[in-house]
Amino acid sequence: MSVSVPETSRVYTLAQRPTGTPTSDDFELETRQTPDPDAGSVLVRTLYLSVDPYMRGRMRAGESYAEPWDVGAPLEGGVVGEVVASNGGGFEPGDVVTGNLQWAEYATAAGSDLTRVDPDRAPLSASLGVLGMPGTTAYFGVNEVARPRAGETFVVTGAAGAVGSVAGQIAALNGARVVGFTGTDEKAAYLEDELGFDAAVNYATTEDYAAALDEAAPDGVDAYFDNVGGEITDAVFSRLNVDARVAVCGQIALYNATETPTGPRKLGTLIEKRATVEGFLVSDFAPRFERATRQIGEWIAAGDVQYRETVTEGLENAPEAFIGLFEGDNIGKQVVKVADPDL
Amino acid sequence: MSVSVPETSRVYTLAQRPTGTPTSDDFELETRQTPDPDAGSVLVRTLYLSVDPYMRGRMRAGESYAEPWDVGAPLEGGVVGEVVASNGGGFEPGDVVTGNLQWAEYATAAGSDLTRVDPDRAPLSASLGVLGMPGTTAYFGVNEVARPRAGETFVVTGAAGAVGSVAGQIAALNGARVVGFTGTDEKAAYLEDELGFDAAVNYATTEDYAAALDEAAPDGVDAYFDNVGGEITDAVFSRLNVDARVAVCGQIALYNATETPTGPRKLGTLIEKRATVEGFLVSDFAPRFERATRQIGEWIAAGDVQYRETVTEGLENAPEAFIGLFEGDNIGKQVVKVADPDL
Repeated sequence: MSVSVPETSRVYTLAQRPTGTPTSDDFELETRQTPDPDAGSVLVRTLYLSVDPYMRGRMRAGESYAEPWDVGAPLEGGVVGEVVASNGGGFEPGDVVTGNLQWAEYATAAGSDLTRVDPDRAPLSASLGVLGMPGTTAYFGVNEVARPRAGETFVVTGAAGAVGSVAGQIAALNGARVVGFTGTDEKAAYLEDELGFDAAVNYATTEDYAAALDEAAPDGVDAYFDNVGGEITDAVFSRLNVDARVAVCGQIALYNATETPTGPRKLGTLIEKRATVEGFLVSDFAPRFERATRQIGEWIAAGDVQYRETVTEGLENAPEAFIGLFEGDNIGKQVVKVADPDL
Repeated sequence: MSVSVPETSRVYTLAQRPTGTPTSDDFELETRQTPDPDAGSVLVRTLYLSVDPYMRGRMRAGESYAEPWDVGAPLEGGVVGEVVASNGGGFEPGDVVTGNLQWAEYATAAGSDLTRVDPDRAPLSASLGVLGMPGTTAYFGVNEVARPRAGETFVVTGAAGAVGSVAGQIAALNGARVVGFTGTDEKAAYLEDELGFDAAVNYATTEDYAAALDEAAPDGVDAYFDNVGGEITDAVFSRLNVDARVAVCGQIALYNATETPTGPRKLGTLIEKRATVEGFLVSDFAPRFERATRQIGEWIAAGDVQYRETVTEGLENAPEAFIGLFEGDNIGKQVVKVADPDL
């Protein structure tokens, strides 16, 4: 199998560190020499690129759980692509793989950093969503951290997003009453009508989140999966039941803040409710990813878990797709389609 | 054994609900008929009365984990006293007992709500402190919630208080480096020189708590036992290590606030650090109190746990002793001595 690889190809670099919400000026689309794979590496042609809220943290200087991107250097993220050349990397041209690669049309990676994707299992992009990092985040956040039980009430924010939509469905499979906070009526209807959420609250048209919770979660909140933070989280904390568990997955409402966000101090509530608040990173569960994605795949096959994707076409539109995450433009997983498979 | 009981005796009632820090006007010392014990009850002559920060919550109207005190009704709290009359309550005159009784010279209680105190085991007042609720709070908060391990760093606020001073010593027995925050140089010296804390920070003379932590806890914070809340807690959260555990026991810095206290939002920190914040109430561990106090007693006998008490003389001075808790007037457990044993 022979593949023609262009001499130059496009790659996004970080033009500058954003202040507040990122804009297109923070990204630069460069044309660079297409790299050759070193020994043990392969050259991958990008098919789908993932944009995720956590990447906002990588745009900042300074320590975080994800290494900061360097100004002038290529951005990185989850990619599904096809191997077009291998230099002893353990893959053959035509293999479909996933891993953390550059926001680029072509990129190299060590074979050991890539995972094979079965192209017959599901649409390729699912490896970046329900069968990838967001899906496993939902799986472990629900089953290992928030731990909703039958008869309990589970609340999730960012409920129509890549993580929240799966989290709510897994909580429902565990027998919990599931309530989602989301930002449009369309998303609320999707959660209630298609995903089987017991209730969905459109926070954009809701003034009093606590009152909305009294209606949507009349027995209080036993398990809370937080992707958003801020005032919705304040309201949920005010409705926690005794022994409640809070899984802190993301705080997208705060990621673009230019000053330290402040809010009501809530630790006293935790005493009275003997509640537990636990932050988690899905990467800590890496040894169990395969088992989790196998389980999620079975749920999809059985019709117990549904998912949607929002696909933006063209590498050049990746910044727009990323910035749209903070506007809630996506339903389900936001991916960027860079190319069709052609091997 | 025959005892003369006065026809009338003194009891404190709640005069009004305080706004902000309680004052003596919020308490009223009344002279009432000394009660007769109902069937199954005993009459107890108070020897020591406990005043504790959590009682501030009982002065408020509205739901909390401790029932609110009613305006005009007697206050309640931990008491050590001697039984002076029994009406089938399962105790004999002369027995020393502890339980939740009124802030009164004489009070009745169901025999089933009282616990016998061995007067030869320790000073009677210890049943209200190191061998009572504060001691067991420290024991379970350290061993079940904060869980410091050998080689880790443990930080406690309110470190010279009834709970904090014991918590720090138990953490040290577990092999942790122990750092305490306290409010005077005298207390800091007590923690370092007598209780064996590795470092003590006088927050009253410290401007930058985070910088003080960098010195006192150079390897970061693995386990945090919070009695205080507010800005010290903000600083500790900024220094949490990966997998840190925070036990939320009290928030005394906030109890007298008249408006909802606000502060920096810290949930994002918990994600990055995979940290857990857990509120707890010692009452949930009631079935294991006996085992815990036996263990603490053994540590005291072995010289591994030291304790002090601050004794205020006279029931009439109980409000002053209580209000002093919020000024940090006490070292170790604050008790009110109401009478000497005389049976």
